[in-house]
Amino acid sequence: GYLQTRYTEMLGGDEGINLWSDRSVGDQNSLGDADKNYLIRRARLVFQGDVGDRLSFYIQPDFASSAGTTGNVAQMRDAYGDVYLTTDRVHRLRVGQSKVPFGWENLQSSSNRLALDRADALNSAVRDERDLGIFYYFTPKGVQARFDEINKRGLKHSGNYGMFGVGLYNGQGANRGDRNDNQHVVARVSYPWKFAGGQFFEAGVQAYSGEYVPSTAAYRAPDDVSLTPTIADEFRFGYDDERVGVSAIWYPQPFGIQAEWNWGTTPGLDVATNSIVEQDLEGGYVQAMYKLDHRFGTFLPFVKWQYFDGASKAENNAPLNEVNDLEIGVEWQIAAPLELAAVYHRMNRTNLVTGNRAGRIDYRRFEADALRLQLQLNF
Amino acid sequence: GYLQTRYTEMLGGDEGINLWSDRSVGDQNSLGDADKNYLIRRARLVFQGDVGDRLSFYIQPDFASSAGTTGNVAQMRDAYGDVYLTTDRVHRLRVGQSKVPFGWENLQSSSNRLALDRADALNSAVRDERDLGIFYYFTPKGVQARFDEINKRGLKHSGNYGMFGVGLYNGQGANRGDRNDNQHVVARVSYPWKFAGGQFFEAGVQAYSGEYVPSTAAYRAPDDVSLTPTIADEFRFGYDDERVGVSAIWYPQPFGIQAEWNWGTTPGLDVATNSIVEQDLEGGYVQAMYKLDHRFGTFLPFVKWQYFDGASKAENNAPLNEVNDLEIGVEWQIAAPLELAAVYHRMNRTNLVTGNRAGRIDYRRFEADALRLQLQLNF
Amino acid sequence: GYLQTRYTEMLGGDEGINLWSDRSVGDQNSLGDADKNYLIRRARLVFQGDVGDRLSFYIQPDFASSAGTTGNVAQMRDAYGDVYLTTDRVHRLRVGQSKVPFGWENLQSSSNRLALDRADALNSAVRDERDLGIFYYFTPKGVQARFDEINKRGLKHSGNYGMFGVGLYNGQGANRGDRNDNQHVVARVSYPWKFAGGQFFEAGVQAYSGEYVPSTAAYRAPDDVSLTPTIADEFRFGYDDERVGVSAIWYPQPFGIQAEWNWGTTPGLDVATNSIVEQDLEGGYVQAMYKLDHRFGTFLPFVKWQYFDGASKAENNAPLNEVNDLEIGVEWQIAAPLELAAVYHRMNRTNLVTGNRAGRIDYRRFEADALRLQLQLNF
Repeated sequence: GYLQTRYTEMLGGDEGINLWSDRSVGDQNSLGDADKNYLIRRARLVFQGDVGDRLSFYIQPDFASSAGTTGNVAQMRDAYGDVYLTTDRVHRLRVGQSKVPFGWENLQSSSNRLALDRADALNSAVRDERDLGIFYYFTPKGVQARFDEINKRGLKHSGNYGMFGVGLYNGQGANRGDRNDNQHVVARVSYPWKFAGGQFFEAGVQAYSGEYVPSTAAYRAPDDVSLTPTIADEFRFGYDDERVGVSAIWYPQPFGIQAEWNWGTTPGLDVATNSIVEQDLEGGYVQAMYKLDHRFGTFLPFVKWQYFDGASKAENNAPLNEVNDLEIGVEWQIAAPLELAAVYHRMNRTNLVTGNRAGRIDYRRFEADALRLQLQLNF
Repeated sequence: GYLQTRYTEMLGGDEGINLWSDRSVGDQNSLGDADKNYLIRRARLVFQGDVGDRLSFYIQPDFASSAGTTGNVAQMRDAYGDVYLTTDRVHRLRVGQSKVPFGWENLQSSSNRLALDRADALNSAVRDERDLGIFYYFTPKGVQARFDEINKRGLKHSGNYGMFGVGLYNGQGANRGDRNDNQHVVARVSYPWKFAGGQFFEAGVQAYSGEYVPSTAAYRAPDDVSLTPTIADEFRFGYDDERVGVSAIWYPQPFGIQAEWNWGTTPGLDVATNSIVEQDLEGGYVQAMYKLDHRFGTFLPFVKWQYFDGASKAENNAPLNEVNDLEIGVEWQIAAPLELAAVYHRMNRTNLVTGNRAGRIDYRRFEADALRLQLQLNF
Repeated sequence: GYLQTRYTEMLGGDEGINLWSDRSVGDQNSLGDADKNYLIRRARLVFQGDVGDRLSFYIQPDFASSAGTTGNVAQMRDAYGDVYLTTDRVHRLRVGQSKVPFGWENLQSSSNRLALDRADALNSAVRDERDLGIFYYFTPKGVQARFDEINKRGLKHSGNYGMFGVGLYNGQGANRGDRNDNQHVVARVSYPWKFAGGQFFEAGVQAYSGEYVPSTAAYRAPDDVSLTPTIADEFRFGYDDERVGVSAIWYPQPFGIQAEWNWGTTPGLDVATNSIVEQDLEGGYVQAMYKLDHRFGTFLPFVKWQYFDGASKAENNAPLNEVNDLEIGVEWQIAAPLELAAVYHRMNRTNLVTGNRAGRIDYRRFEADALRLQLQLNF
């Protein structure tokens, strides 16, 4: 498992802001009893093993989850079994709660990511990246070997989710029950090339489709009144929720570049009519990075630009989520079990954390700068 | 531990129904954001060990429990120590939260049961089968050996809860505090015979007595109004809660039959007067099964009929629980770590899941058919 | 880890009382669905290890925590890494959620304490003894060896929190986000002497300072009305929260004595004005004990007197907490993994558990006697 402890120093910009994905970002005017100083972002323990040559299991709780107002309770992230249809592990079924194969960065472990959080554009596709269902993965032996090699060289691979994968899942996100009889369906192809000189390049395409039922709650509307969005009767059992995305990763040997983009349809709040409607979405990110092996450790400087013009269906009211952020940072692998990351983050985005507090309109756009630090322990 | 993933297909009958014990049963008109498609029913990890020759400990959390509206949090199932009064383990005290020795099926692990859920008639005796207290178990060495032999032969034993057991416990069920100064007391005798030809037969009798304090909440009464039941002052510290039951198991070598029945007194909702009163209860089940060892694995077809005319004290308002269900299914042990079960379930019972929703009367009787699937991973 | 199961028998005094730190104390007139009979007070599992010679990790969830009304869920206690600045472990940083080095008894594990609960006077300094931050500990090799020796002799040491320690932390207590931009700062010195004849004596001094933001909720005020305290605007981002304390431990070889006292400033409820204000606090405890090694095991009789005139900032409304309690008990270490403790507890204190129930004024002073039993399993 691993443990991520964070600390954020606000450098300027608007006050009282929140970053939904990291509660340590903000100041004492922020909503939601944010962790203005230290925060344990993730505390993961992994229980895994092979049982015979036909089954592997993987149980990963997170000890930094919340239940209502109670902090740091253990909640399931992964709980699945891999059933190997062939003992060479080329064909397998994954049953239970696991990552949905949509987006390379979504599949990459947070313990491997350079940026502190995933880009909203693709991360908004699946709440907590995971859902409950059944997935089939096809990984020829040559591709298995190549995935392994990328990973062993410290190039921060996404893990083996098949050269080809297809799955059926509930569609409401991790640890949530389904709310309609519809199932989401997803498919993904990803292929790793190895060029002369050993350079790896991976490219993929993925798509999913289903019907999503958003939750509603009171929020502070622009004229400082408390409103709860309406859902038209035709959408009672869900809005169209479908996306297609492309991914390309030139692994950092030593210079790397990584980019993903997706387009689709999503439920999203229309503040003007106070109703949730079907909306188009578009967005992605580009990241450049460099891997420098030094006697003081490995240094990975990076710069990441992300853009999103869509909505966050998994938050109450499916609010619009407009993002145009820049991150410049460096990860220092002091030793195998110890990583320190420092990131300058220039945010230009909407605030997804809602408080429904008089005088404070929800879902406003803000600009702010922050210095974000993370110490990660791997064990 | 083990992991149970389920999927249910409704085949017919009334719409909008719920099965309290399995949220994957139902359709999108069901109450309570049911998991209409996939569900992780149980995700258990066991931490156990011997410390010296006088103590064993057993800690079993479940990672598929809910806290309020937060899904898949870790909640304790077992947390106890066995203190061996004699090192031959004939006499022992079990202290902490553990299964209450009432009902053979209640004691059998869910990972061993053929039917997907326990029969309501005996399962309603103890919430989550467990409570907090102190239990004494007496198991002569010959009986220890016989219990072990039944288990090792794959005959799905209940585990060793003594040839004789007696205990004191809070009485409100697992993970709940007591609500009166009264303690529940339970006693059980179970004896395994081994006949010529090696056929095992086990029979038992058990009884408990105590005072139970039910919880109340608003529900939708028959005239479509929201009501909360009243509790008369004399019942402020509890209603009589006492039962006696009999059990008989002819182990499947290869044909088996298993039956249990119980009678007693319980708190139960009287809708006519909108009050909780003391009521009689009666019910049980009969199950026939067959064990077929084949080169494709072990197949255990079974048929189970259950009947209950009582109430479910552990649910809010202690509603009436009338059941007359038939299950026909088969468990396929594909390999030791992997079991697939398919069950046709004909339900004729009251809906215990309450929503207090206008136009939808709670606690109504319904009839429905479902095909229920479960994949179980043992590790 | 370890498991503590408790049972309390009330012997006399006022009825309907609660002891905030042990829900098994009280009777059926007590508030909050107390566990009037059996209670699992702590169920701890420890996941720890060294990763290389520069890092140790320590993850300790408790399985007897509550989330809202849901009992026995897993919640984080410790989640930290020790980063050794020098491989002789003289200099180290502890990052994550860990015990705040204020008070010797606070640092001692509950599995080692003779009394069933910590004394309120020092325990009220840090909710659940822990917070999230970064701590530096300095422990010369000679002091490391002496701490180890005290522990190995079964003298119930507090563990190694440095000869000198200093830290920055959020300040709102374990598993809670910070609520202002202020950080708490703590420092502690503790030195163990070894006298001729091998007698150990440890003495320490510690202090912390910060700004604490209390939570408010409705309570039953003296004239039987429901009130919620006001917080003046100047205290919106916190009240002064600072203490200094002294500790002295003459280890039981065989006779021992242990005493701590602290003074400071804290937010506290002023019932007369129904507002939370800054108040002085003072209190501590003195404990005498004896260690008797016998062929039936080790017996540790003890007597503890505690006094507190302060407030409990971590409870809603920061109510006054006045304590003048006497405990006389004995711990019997039947075997290494098994300890039984029996304590006569004479309580004279305010009731911190609030129910806001008509006719029952909150925060009243009470007197009561109880016989408290605990069985502890170590594994």
